[in-house]
Amino acid sequence: MAFVTAAISVSADGYAAGINLSADKPFGDGPVDQLHRWMFETPDENKEIIDELVGADAFIMGRNMFGPIRGEWDLSWEGWWGPEPPYHKPVYVLTHHARADLAMAGGTTFHFVTGGIHDALDQARAATGDGTIAIAGGAATLNQFLAAGLVDQLTLTVTAVTLGAGQRLFEGVPSLRLEQIKVRPVSLATHITYRVVR
Amino acid sequence: MAFVTAAISVSADGYAAGINLSADKPFGDGPVDQLHRWMFETPDENKEIIDELVGADAFIMGRNMFGPIRGEWDLSWEGWWGPEPPYHKPVYVLTHHARADLAMAGGTTFHFVTGGIHDALDQARAATGDGTIAIAGGAATLNQFLAAGLVDQLTLTVTAVTLGAGQRLFEGVPSLRLEQIKVRPVSLATHITYRVVR
Repeated sequence: MAFVTAAISVSADGYAAGINLSADKPFGDGPVDQLHRWMFETPDENKEIIDELVGADAFIMGRNMFGPIRGEWDLSWEGWWGPEPPYHKPVYVLTHHARADLAMAGGTTFHFVTGGIHDALDQARAATGDGTIAIAGGAATLNQFLAAGLVDQLTLTVTAVTLGAGQRLFEGVPSLRLEQIKVRPVSLATHITYRVVR
Repeated sequence: MAFVTAAISVSADGYAAGINLSADKPFGDGPVDQLHRWMFETPDENKEIIDELVGADAFIMGRNMFGPIRGEWDLSWEGWWGPEPPYHKPVYVLTHHARADLAMAGGTTFHFVTGGIHDALDQARAATGDGTIAIAGGAATLNQFLAAGLVDQLTLTVTAVTLGAGQRLFEGVPSLRLEQIKVRPVSLATHITYRVVR
């Protein structure tokens, strides 16, 4: 049975992004650069967790994490990551708009899934067997998986800022019993890994 | 100039208490016992932070933290803590209803302040000089102090549960720039201390 993980950076008040997301500002307005400073400014110190982030056997993401486009696809958009995305594995993108598979350099293939979270998970499981499937974000997508009880392990990267408004992790998610299994404090954040107790 | 601190246990989704607080259930409904298991089940491991919690020179708390009573005072209520509260110092209780000072065994004196958060802080400063003033909670009171820019240092104790609803820390608080200055992971929680950047 595949193991479902997620890791997400949040502000100390629980937001994974600000408001008014756009192509120019994928994380929206406000001091949202604080959410990922740990990754960009101190990568050496965070090598283990960055390796984990991109080390799954398959990935599932929401459409907003794949791109800023709403409605019908602009087929020239191939994700935020350039010609060689860091995933190197199948990535299932949740969308209401069908699109042909998109194979990128380095082994990443984007599959566009119109059947919702269970459909995406079924496809990822079929591709990975007993492997690890990472819910790559954003918050709205992860919240759907958490609310449906489909996540086995969750890493919150708590960062040194509050946003006051934005895309809130756990919005609409009923109470979860967690077990704290690993804490990794680094200079600019604290990575807390929980097992979700069923 | 007095140094203003606060420390509060929150769920991983940012609630400091559940809903429906009452005399029988000071933290309300839901798995709220998870918020303070670290304190009650593993006190040895948390001695340093517990000492910090009660080690200030004066304390400010909201009325709900002092007791479950709303409206006019029932003078037989002397707080949740029994005859010798753990503060041993002046405690300023925010309330809309005047009440005479209440001196308890062990040096705790409750002062009832009707003039709001600035009045309480002025009184605490007058009593402590350059000492440390702790905003003891609950979330609604701490949110008022955070929103007014009056907190110098904040310790979040992030616990292994989500509540899905309740009294949310940072509700109504605008974006804050923080500096992570100390992280103390323990078995049942992670204590993260921030300096609030002005």
